[in-house]
Amino acid sequence: MAFEWPVRIYWEDTDAGGIVFYANYLKFFERARTEWLRSLDLGQQRLRELTGGMFVVTDARLRYLRPARLDDELIVTASLQGSGRASMTIEQQALLKPQQMNSGSQPTVLCEASIRIGWVDGASMRPARIPDPVLQRLSPP
Amino acid sequence: MAFEWPVRIYWEDTDAGGIVFYANYLKFFERARTEWLRSLDLGQQRLRELTGGMFVVTDARLRYLRPARLDDELIVTASLQGSGRASMTIEQQALLKPQQMNSGSQPTVLCEASIRIGWVDGASMRPARIPDPVLQRLSPP
Amino acid sequence: MAFEWPVRIYWEDTDAGGIVFYANYLKFFERARTEWLRSLDLGQQRLRELTGGMFVVTDARLRYLRPARLDDELIVTASLQGSGRASMTIEQQALLKPQQMNSGSQPTVLCEASIRIGWVDGASMRPARIPDPVLQRLSPP
Amino acid sequence: MAFEWPVRIYWEDTDAGGIVFYANYLKFFERARTEWLRSLDLGQQRLRELTGGMFVVTDARLRYLRPARLDDELIVTASLQGSGRASMTIEQQALLKPQQMNSGSQPTVLCEASIRIGWVDGASMRPARIPDPVLQRLSPP
Repeated sequence: MAFEWPVRIYWEDTDAGGIVFYANYLKFFERARTEWLRSLDLGQQRLRELTGGMFVVTDARLRYLRPARLDDELIVTASLQGSGRASMTIEQQALLKPQQMNSGSQPTVLCEASIRIGWVDGASMRPARIPDPVLQRLSPP
Repeated sequence: MAFEWPVRIYWEDTDAGGIVFYANYLKFFERARTEWLRSLDLGQQRLRELTGGMFVVTDARLRYLRPARLDDELIVTASLQGSGRASMTIEQQALLKPQQMNSGSQPTVLCEASIRIGWVDGASMRPARIPDPVLQRLSPP
Repeated sequence: MAFEWPVRIYWEDTDAGGIVFYANYLKFFERARTEWLRSLDLGQQRLRELTGGMFVVTDARLRYLRPARLDDELIVTASLQGSGRASMTIEQQALLKPQQMNSGSQPTVLCEASIRIGWVDGASMRPARIPDPVLQRLSPP
Repeated sequence: MAFEWPVRIYWEDTDAGGIVFYANYLKFFERARTEWLRSLDLGQQRLRELTGGMFVVTDARLRYLRPARLDDELIVTASLQGSGRASMTIEQQALLKPQQMNSGSQPTVLCEASIRIGWVDGASMRPARIPDPVLQRLSPP
């Protein structure tokens, strides 16, 4: 089951087209991944202090289906699709929360993404193996 | 008493100095004002549809006292200081939430702002009188 | 030959990792596409006033190869790969400008993107056919 | 005479009000200050490497007079008003560049700012004295 994180649309997120500026979905997806990692006790500031390394995005694929607008409430998901020794791939969706919470209404998919994350040494920015304790939290036995 | 809104610091908010990029406090203050207005049933998208007008910032004063960092939790306040027929002034603070919620620890003030908001016609962007129903919600008798 | 546009890295573009925040490459690519369109006399504000429609991004694929840092000078390219009646695909690169302009040094590729753009009606946001005069400027005979 | 830097308005700068999002003027002012410092041979990335310190904004006052829109060309100015041992104040304007460059048209002031900058140690973020070589470049004899 996917991790879910609520995101509200503010003025800062919109553009003169009257809709959310498409680059900002990468921010929403990042927030959801950050909170998913935090829920696994993998806070990134502390990770960096403990290990000297950090996650960076190496590939992103985004598909924009419908626009979000000012004041909309989104649900942003994050779901681990696979992880290796040095990277992992996360599938994500930005969904428009239905206005009324009756059983019939389904959330509308606004944007879908596949994000590949690598681990790098924080000083050199060179790719490195994800530390074992991090890997274990990501892939429970 | 001031309205309060929580804000978490993500990668998108920081800069290469390792701290929150100072322009982004204006975003945090905007989110708190938006939620304060929403708590008064003054959602801005709906306001514009109903009245054809909108609030715009006409003056901003910011004082930066201490930096926020990745993963920090802030409390952002909004407090109406005065309102006229065409504008209002809101005092705001960004506070660092104490890590432990024991009685002794006080939140640290990171940034203080005084924001003046005017009402404009959405098409012409010309200043206009705040509609009466809006004004009444802002200044309860 | 690809259209080229210079982009300088400022504080606003960086994050606490000390490098350019990856979502911001979408902004750099957008600037280069906008200037490419402008060079074809397809300014977007005027396009919308004349036709009621606008371009929106429907798909984006990004590959991050090397980080950019504060004060770096980039060259961002845009190259039309194909266009149909309702969309077009643009290949883009963000290159690090060599510090010295001697013949031997090649620009380093920092980020590559493939961006698909669709035409929509500005009011309904529904997909529509790219107006003929726009299409003719994009694909000269 | 004030230092001048051109800024073009892109989609990323606008919001759903159809105008430039007011927080973004802080970015435009920062770009102009950065280029002004660079013109004095005070590149900030190199400054930090050489001295371990950096400039940070401690106070900002902004007055919004008229909105800018997509595709507008601005001229952003920076003018040193005073500098002490640990801080300096810079007056800035964002001007709308007249469409036609005939002698009669004056640029329209869109936004005015007074920005106070302090010098801090990059590791501790504590205020410190501006290094003498930096101060000498800022205030020529």
